[in-house]
Amino acid sequence: MTSADLGLLSPMRGAGEATGDAAVLRAMLAAEVALARIQAPAEAVAAIERAARPERFDVAELADRARAGGNPVIPLVESLREAAGEHGHWVHAGATSQDIVDTALMLVVRRTLGPLLDDLGTVHGALTRLAADHRDTPMAARTLTQQAVPTTFGLKAAGWRALVADASVRLADVRTPAQLGGPAGTLDPALTAAFAAELGLAEPVLPWHVLRTPIADLAGALAFTAGALGKLAADVLVLSRGEIGELSEGVGGGSSSMPHKHNPVRATMIAAAARQVPMLAAVLYGSMAAEDERPAGAWHAEWQPLREALRLVAGAAADAAELSVSLRVHPERMRANLTVTGSTGAAASLVDRALEESR
Amino acid sequence: MTSADLGLLSPMRGAGEATGDAAVLRAMLAAEVALARIQAPAEAVAAIERAARPERFDVAELADRARAGGNPVIPLVESLREAAGEHGHWVHAGATSQDIVDTALMLVVRRTLGPLLDDLGTVHGALTRLAADHRDTPMAARTLTQQAVPTTFGLKAAGWRALVADASVRLADVRTPAQLGGPAGTLDPALTAAFAAELGLAEPVLPWHVLRTPIADLAGALAFTAGALGKLAADVLVLSRGEIGELSEGVGGGSSSMPHKHNPVRATMIAAAARQVPMLAAVLYGSMAAEDERPAGAWHAEWQPLREALRLVAGAAADAAELSVSLRVHPERMRANLTVTGSTGAAASLVDRALEESR
Amino acid sequence: MTSADLGLLSPMRGAGEATGDAAVLRAMLAAEVALARIQAPAEAVAAIERAARPERFDVAELADRARAGGNPVIPLVESLREAAGEHGHWVHAGATSQDIVDTALMLVVRRTLGPLLDDLGTVHGALTRLAADHRDTPMAARTLTQQAVPTTFGLKAAGWRALVADASVRLADVRTPAQLGGPAGTLDPALTAAFAAELGLAEPVLPWHVLRTPIADLAGALAFTAGALGKLAADVLVLSRGEIGELSEGVGGGSSSMPHKHNPVRATMIAAAARQVPMLAAVLYGSMAAEDERPAGAWHAEWQPLREALRLVAGAAADAAELSVSLRVHPERMRANLTVTGSTGAAASLVDRALEESR
Amino acid sequence: MTSADLGLLSPMRGAGEATGDAAVLRAMLAAEVALARIQAPAEAVAAIERAARPERFDVAELADRARAGGNPVIPLVESLREAAGEHGHWVHAGATSQDIVDTALMLVVRRTLGPLLDDLGTVHGALTRLAADHRDTPMAARTLTQQAVPTTFGLKAAGWRALVADASVRLADVRTPAQLGGPAGTLDPALTAAFAAELGLAEPVLPWHVLRTPIADLAGALAFTAGALGKLAADVLVLSRGEIGELSEGVGGGSSSMPHKHNPVRATMIAAAARQVPMLAAVLYGSMAAEDERPAGAWHAEWQPLREALRLVAGAAADAAELSVSLRVHPERMRANLTVTGSTGAAASLVDRALEESR
Repeated sequence: MTSADLGLLSPMRGAGEATGDAAVLRAMLAAEVALARIQAPAEAVAAIERAARPERFDVAELADRARAGGNPVIPLVESLREAAGEHGHWVHAGATSQDIVDTALMLVVRRTLGPLLDDLGTVHGALTRLAADHRDTPMAARTLTQQAVPTTFGLKAAGWRALVADASVRLADVRTPAQLGGPAGTLDPALTAAFAAELGLAEPVLPWHVLRTPIADLAGALAFTAGALGKLAADVLVLSRGEIGELSEGVGGGSSSMPHKHNPVRATMIAAAARQVPMLAAVLYGSMAAEDERPAGAWHAEWQPLREALRLVAGAAADAAELSVSLRVHPERMRANLTVTGSTGAAASLVDRALEESR
Repeated sequence: MTSADLGLLSPMRGAGEATGDAAVLRAMLAAEVALARIQAPAEAVAAIERAARPERFDVAELADRARAGGNPVIPLVESLREAAGEHGHWVHAGATSQDIVDTALMLVVRRTLGPLLDDLGTVHGALTRLAADHRDTPMAARTLTQQAVPTTFGLKAAGWRALVADASVRLADVRTPAQLGGPAGTLDPALTAAFAAELGLAEPVLPWHVLRTPIADLAGALAFTAGALGKLAADVLVLSRGEIGELSEGVGGGSSSMPHKHNPVRATMIAAAARQVPMLAAVLYGSMAAEDERPAGAWHAEWQPLREALRLVAGAAADAAELSVSLRVHPERMRANLTVTGSTGAAASLVDRALEESR
Repeated sequence: MTSADLGLLSPMRGAGEATGDAAVLRAMLAAEVALARIQAPAEAVAAIERAARPERFDVAELADRARAGGNPVIPLVESLREAAGEHGHWVHAGATSQDIVDTALMLVVRRTLGPLLDDLGTVHGALTRLAADHRDTPMAARTLTQQAVPTTFGLKAAGWRALVADASVRLADVRTPAQLGGPAGTLDPALTAAFAAELGLAEPVLPWHVLRTPIADLAGALAFTAGALGKLAADVLVLSRGEIGELSEGVGGGSSSMPHKHNPVRATMIAAAARQVPMLAAVLYGSMAAEDERPAGAWHAEWQPLREALRLVAGAAADAAELSVSLRVHPERMRANLTVTGSTGAAASLVDRALEESR
Repeated sequence: MTSADLGLLSPMRGAGEATGDAAVLRAMLAAEVALARIQAPAEAVAAIERAARPERFDVAELADRARAGGNPVIPLVESLREAAGEHGHWVHAGATSQDIVDTALMLVVRRTLGPLLDDLGTVHGALTRLAADHRDTPMAARTLTQQAVPTTFGLKAAGWRALVADASVRLADVRTPAQLGGPAGTLDPALTAAFAAELGLAEPVLPWHVLRTPIADLAGALAFTAGALGKLAADVLVLSRGEIGELSEGVGGGSSSMPHKHNPVRATMIAAAARQVPMLAAVLYGSMAAEDERPAGAWHAEWQPLREALRLVAGAAADAAELSVSLRVHPERMRANLTVTGSTGAAASLVDRALEESR
């Protein structure tokens, strides 16, 4: 336990339970059990189900044993085979380590995306209200840090909302196929179909051991979402500066040394996440160029960046939900700050137009 | 001219004419002309069309004048206004610099994506043939650099083809909307619609000055495509190693010192591009988190990475077209190299399955 | 505990104990105690020392409480103050959260770099022997995947060794200063000097809350080391391919499905690490551009990438130590594979020259 | 010429002449001439000098011919050999393409770093004056966007100066060795020493075709410098916001639509550069993990990112020089904005301490 990460340095991360090592272990065990169910005799299935009870495993010990072969499936299968006794040969039958890890990660992705999309839905709802409520609230549009001409806060909120809607669509479109190809990706696709059905995952056309479309699409959708929420956070950080004061976080954070401060902590957390996800996505995109039927490094390099990107985006979405629901808008400061004159142009009608768009 | 980049250190880049400074200038001029056409009287339009003839401009001089204000539209508009004389007030009327640069870049993107998709189509066709022709050609599947069990070359080619198809879909899905919002993004959307129609670009729901969905989607699609072609290149590089010799490039490159060598140059170029694009995409994703109605840096940081990513992917697609059409397959070496025994499993039927999938 | 990361998906990481949350907590407590020692009366120091015993804290609970304010020092200080009773006002006196987190991370860096440099020393020693032993062992030099002209394996090993030496110098040069500036970085430097001395850390000229030289230098040194070891791994992966067979790992890894395989697992782990560290370093370099006296996001974005980069490089160094000490060289295969003729040129004398260079 | 980049979309770049294709061509020719001088008979040298006059070459044509073999040296050597007639065999004798490209790029680096360091010197001087002049000028320290406690502007300027000094040291420490190893890196080191001396470059211990220490060190130093200047820019952008108004650029930029605006253009340009360089550095660090004696892609992937990083940092330094020399400080606004009370602590003595430090 002494090497555990429990989030002490990651207040901007979310989805801890859905993505932690225990969740990954459970997902790998679910994959091994599903594999047995689609091909093994009933007795063997029962034995493997017993062998695969998560509480039988010590994650730290398994992690330790994973080092030798470079992946956690090797020791996991050893343990399962031993526990399954005479049915041991039905454990992992026909599969390769990557089948289990990839499938497990898709299960983890699925379980993470649900709440994440819910949080984005909350943000979208809150921003819809802000856009409607402040359709006509004048404030300065600012470009290159200087006041340009007036706009309305409603238009700003409608813009944030449009980005969040785009992010939701992209995340919801990510496919999470099962992986089952065997050592060379040449396994009977009927088996893969049954495996996918058993786990409630999508069925791939081909094994995707080195055809990383699902990972790359996820990388793109996560980087997009981090950027979309990062835009919201960037604006909140500017507008809640003391000298501007047009917005403030409803649940602001304190300080270890200055109790008088009202820090925009949620926006800060989102901004911190948005700085990291593009580079994690770059690692994942880079891993597409994978040689052979299983590459020596490119696949392994995906595991932690994928989880980390999921966590950062899940955390950013949770923070954005809290932020948007409780955001305090100060129209009087918006008006008082305005040093540029002129009309707000088509701002209000653009809000109407944006709100008419279905998500 | 002394500071020009003409591609001397970029043999892996393509789309030079479509993305060069001259093309950007022409696209900016087209945007200014379109803006006049949708709102100015006929005489003013004629004057602006005359003023906006590309041959009137010296790109290097314009680039030099762009430094002061940090964007090329400021000096461009000055020149146009001067040349348009009494109609000068119709030049750039209502627009902001970003309207012109963003719109111009979308025109550049459109003109680049066409040939790029054509090249991907060529690759797809060539890989379809390779997959069909070698549906049953046995070769070693290799995992972590070691032979695992047999597969067929057809299945490998079908996998490459699937990635290329995925890339084409993602690139074809990228929207290229016009940009016209004025200084604060509050311009009448009817004007934007007319502007978009005039230029043959998509009409955006809202001005997207700081809602960078089009750029982010393009970044993702380009990184995806670079990775997809990078997979093909990675395999060709392994399999054309002298000691393996299962593939060789039809149009191999030479060497400045060793005329005996037959280097896999096209695959090398693709690999070099695939190493760069994810990081350029990370810059573009990072620019989504843009403060205000126009950010101080995030927007400007997009310009060159966007063009560079377009060029690298266009070059990789052209190289992949040449490579895939002329690739030499050596089935006898594939067979001779096989040190693992066993069947090729469902490889052949997976090829059939993959080829049945529509693009 | 359900959200813990224990390394299940990180067989390529090292320094778990030195960098885990428990170690960070101990380092933060050490910083708070040191702060008391340099300024508080003896009784208060004793009370704070008692309050700061690590076993009193539950990392998961602290992590949970860290979310509200966005950093773990706020709840830590609350707990310490409560436990210190009447001496509570001496807890964290004059300091800001960043003083504690930055100082703690420098302690973590220090404790990680020691063993890391030891592992690099082992690699260097093993490569020195390989270079000397194979000074004259001919093998093919390969360029763009094709045999070029002969070289010797000794020269290849001497090259690896030179990179490892360069990496060691860069890591050893990284300074690890204490941080103590108070909320605005305006604290009396005499206090900082005493604080640094108490903890055995370097004394900074100025508080470096937003002058991130130590972090940036570390980022560069870690990316360099990952690349240096990545070069070794890349060569081992090529040369241990079945069809080449010039090298093999002494302690190769197996496979969950193919017991006959002898996978180059250590090289694969190093390669996987080398793919990730440059992007983590990019996040850290990016965080230098931090606004104000403490930025809203850039600082927070450093925490996890810094630890992750440390872990990946520590893991790569441990893997490289194991790999280089037990690497099996097959001179007969090197000779048999040679299809190009000619002399090995100055290879042997270059080995001598390289080995004469002091580390 | 139609594909030329002349900087139209790069107002934040500098060092155009030093890094453009024409400069690279001249540097490659200088390398070929130096190679002749150290080994060829006088007549051959004279013939090669004549053949290598830059004006004989058309960069665009050479770039076009570079595509086939994937590097510009192959057509360059063809042209030189043809022009050198009977002495043609002395052209490029013993060298490989990488010797010429790497050496040429080191010459380009050297010529870029000189003016860049001069610009940093100007920045350092200007910041020294600002720190001294405003040693006691009170202003708010801001953390997480909120006022914390008072500091002085002098301390802020002294911090910027410290970063610039650190950057200068790192850039000045970068070694620029000649490259001459021949196809396999086995060339006689005496020849390399003579070659380096002829060109005024450093002599490497070993050929560094795949030991990329010089490139990696440069990448790190450039990323560091971009970050150091990015910090200055980030602060200027905050403090010159209209509602804060504590700083303004002396030579502010205008707008194509709003003549009333005074945009912080130089800071914006620096910020745009700072967003790009870390990712370019990541490409360069990633290329360290290069297989064989010359990799198929990793080397080629360095060329453009290296030049682009040089240009962005050179541009940022030039912008920072202009910015820092003409920066307008508004102490009265600093004082008026202060909403937090308290002393400026040790700010003034920290300024003294910082200014005493030698660069």
